[in-house]
Amino acid sequence: MTRSKSITAAPEIEALIALLAKVPGLGPRSARRAALQLLKKKDLLMLPLAAALSDAAAKVQSCSNCGTLDTANPCALCTAPDRDDGLICVVAEVGDVWALERAGAFKGRYHVLGGVLSALDGVRPDDLRIAKLMERASASGVREVILALAATVDGQTTAHYLAERLAPLSITVSRLSHGVPVGGELDLLDDGTLFAALQSRRPSA
Amino acid sequence: MTRSKSITAAPEIEALIALLAKVPGLGPRSARRAALQLLKKKDLLMLPLAAALSDAAAKVQSCSNCGTLDTANPCALCTAPDRDDGLICVVAEVGDVWALERAGAFKGRYHVLGGVLSALDGVRPDDLRIAKLMERASASGVREVILALAATVDGQTTAHYLAERLAPLSITVSRLSHGVPVGGELDLLDDGTLFAALQSRRPSA
Repeated sequence: MTRSKSITAAPEIEALIALLAKVPGLGPRSARRAALQLLKKKDLLMLPLAAALSDAAAKVQSCSNCGTLDTANPCALCTAPDRDDGLICVVAEVGDVWALERAGAFKGRYHVLGGVLSALDGVRPDDLRIAKLMERASASGVREVILALAATVDGQTTAHYLAERLAPLSITVSRLSHGVPVGGELDLLDDGTLFAALQSRRPSA
Repeated sequence: MTRSKSITAAPEIEALIALLAKVPGLGPRSARRAALQLLKKKDLLMLPLAAALSDAAAKVQSCSNCGTLDTANPCALCTAPDRDDGLICVVAEVGDVWALERAGAFKGRYHVLGGVLSALDGVRPDDLRIAKLMERASASGVREVILALAATVDGQTTAHYLAERLAPLSITVSRLSHGVPVGGELDLLDDGTLFAALQSRRPSA
């Protein structure tokens, strides 16, 4: 299915397909289909996409404070005057910041680690933006650090490690609750989630 | 799943995601993931992809003879000296030319229709490159036209229509055989394919 045999098209097309195949979500087969559609829609899609890629590559950078991606440094989230400086929400990746912002549930500041600790992938504490987190969490006025990390082994290992590192500071360290996803059917849930949802049950309102 | 709510990222990132979401094979969700990965791999993937898109958009065009995509016009397949001018293989899309070239089973010339007749989508004969096909098939030296169209209702309608149009010319008009795909299990095949494979059974070699 994924053979990369020459397609005997022009080298410009083959080069485009080879690069498209490296985009997450596209494989060798879908890259060919994408290349054909792009060549069919040159003015509507292909040239605007080329321009958007160059433009974003030139202007977007990591915020040196929180680690998210923005054209400004420090980023718009770090400088927004209406957000609570006393709350820092720690996430693994920039995509997590976007997810939380879409949910609209958090109005504090963010801190992007750039991954999670992983023995398998060889990710050690020095590979993550932990030193910067310690510096930010130690600043006066910070009341709480929320560890919004995935409910995976690596995510929870990282949360545990950070909770220990943050313990000496006299601030609250919290984690996201586990439980039944909103709109989720009970019989589709895994045992771990059901167990967690029962353990942290709350009095009915 | 496909809500397009603002992600409160920089407008350059949002514009990139919106365009990536229009690439066949990517949706709003995978476009966000792709944008993040691209921004992580600026020099390795993002800038080369932008360059490849601009380059291909500027240089690749439809061959005015056969309709395939190439940087040369007429294309490399139309001008290759070692291919048989007496055979014309008619396909719906450029991707079909690539598929046949990957198979390496055909050494004649191609003709890309640019689609198939479709009552539902309002594709009429004038919308396809049929006039050019008639002109090419009428040239001296052409012995056979192979209708390599999909075994769908629209594909077979188109093949039937073309066979009638080509009938007055004193050339052979043929179609691809139907049957069991090589490597295919019988019990996974649909009834239509099994029926066709039985109908066109051949003496065992």
